[in-house]
Amino acid sequence: MKVAFQGELGAYSEDAVLACFEGAESLPCDSFGEVFAAVASGNVDFGVIPIENSIAGSVHDNYDLFYRHQLYITGECILKIRHCLIALPGVQVRDIKKASSHPQALAQCAGYLRRKNIQPVEAYNTAGSVKLLKESGTRDTAAIASRRAAELYGMQVLEENIADHAENQTRFLILGREPVLPEGEAKTSIVFTLKDRPDALSQALAVFARHDIQLNKIEVRPFSGEPWGQLYFLDFPGLPTVGALDQVGEYASKVRVLGSYPRFRG
Amino acid sequence: MKVAFQGELGAYSEDAVLACFEGAESLPCDSFGEVFAAVASGNVDFGVIPIENSIAGSVHDNYDLFYRHQLYITGECILKIRHCLIALPGVQVRDIKKASSHPQALAQCAGYLRRKNIQPVEAYNTAGSVKLLKESGTRDTAAIASRRAAELYGMQVLEENIADHAENQTRFLILGREPVLPEGEAKTSIVFTLKDRPDALSQALAVFARHDIQLNKIEVRPFSGEPWGQLYFLDFPGLPTVGALDQVGEYASKVRVLGSYPRFRG
Repeated sequence: MKVAFQGELGAYSEDAVLACFEGAESLPCDSFGEVFAAVASGNVDFGVIPIENSIAGSVHDNYDLFYRHQLYITGECILKIRHCLIALPGVQVRDIKKASSHPQALAQCAGYLRRKNIQPVEAYNTAGSVKLLKESGTRDTAAIASRRAAELYGMQVLEENIADHAENQTRFLILGREPVLPEGEAKTSIVFTLKDRPDALSQALAVFARHDIQLNKIEVRPFSGEPWGQLYFLDFPGLPTVGALDQVGEYASKVRVLGSYPRFRG
Repeated sequence: MKVAFQGELGAYSEDAVLACFEGAESLPCDSFGEVFAAVASGNVDFGVIPIENSIAGSVHDNYDLFYRHQLYITGECILKIRHCLIALPGVQVRDIKKASSHPQALAQCAGYLRRKNIQPVEAYNTAGSVKLLKESGTRDTAAIASRRAAELYGMQVLEENIADHAENQTRFLILGREPVLPEGEAKTSIVFTLKDRPDALSQALAVFARHDIQLNKIEVRPFSGEPWGQLYFLDFPGLPTVGALDQVGEYASKVRVLGSYPRFRG
């Protein structure tokens, strides 16, 4: 089994690969687009991408990529993100003047870094900043990444769980070439754009309450196909019913089920 | 009358200021945050900010700033964006090897630049790239900005309307310290977050169809106040009715009317 993710070895996305696929071979990719392409081409069996974070919100790029590729969501996984302050072996916290990481990780640890008087330095990604720190041998600089990234590159965890919000979680989706039919508790993701009628948005959204479907999430992205066009991405529990989708179709066009998949249970 | 906008003199946002406020004095600001702050502090009477583009979608930063400031939307304005290829006087199109502008303007003219074999160069903003080009005196480089920016800096328009999509429009909002009560056709913008009940999202959205309120737009942004929290920004025609807002309030919390204002009519 081969599974693609975005980032360097040791990235949080690779944690998600290991959590979803025991014993899988993980393939690092430079961009989210490459993860989608690797799955589409058959180069890998699955891909794992982050779709939303409890603090930072949705990963818009991945919503856009979903629309451009004919892939299916086959699963989801929610991971706790535990940012660690990582340095070369032997270095102490009081030696650290700078910390490099992905801008989002730096933002999530902004309060901690301020308190410790550590200057944030933006890097391409979290695990990559550990790798670069190891190569540079710099002793007044730390990286912010996962404990696994520190271990992978033979580095030292100076402090664990340094994010300002304790409840920092990321939801990941699994991408496959074929849809799955989940047994047990399921979740469904759909996408549509609207027909050209003034009541289209309010009526398309009202269908769900009318069918007692509890929406988990809505995300809106620009639809490049037409000026002012929007794509609506909706998640709801269970499988899609023909009746509800037909009613949505009265107000929406290009309705597409991105996948029904087992609901994540911690 | 003093009105703040983001960008250099000659920016599209300044076009919007001039379209909304005849004879106003326009105050350039470095960031959207500074525009909000200038209005809040009383330094200017109003601010004008872009909120969505027909091709690129919403300006998320400005949604986030709305929630952080206690300001009101007092008007809207939709402007046609006509990107021009701008160069020093005497330069011809065939001399141009590079074009600098804001990344979004470059993306909107990507097809044109490819056809003409012109290399895009990212700059901080559109009008600013004209100003810098003027100062540098470079003759193999163009800037992409508005005709007014070209005139303001004494530069030459080589070609007008070079965007790949003909229908390139931006909607701007006017910010004020006091709410207005619009006469004639009105539009209302509200924001809320959800109560902690599983049917909150579907039921809050269904209220609008039930009250025959046609939603114009929905935008979703992360709410930093709580993990997984979301802010829902909704636009609809007319004034808010107490009945509808009360029903929304059964499922939503922190319901706030950002403003009712005259609907833009081209």
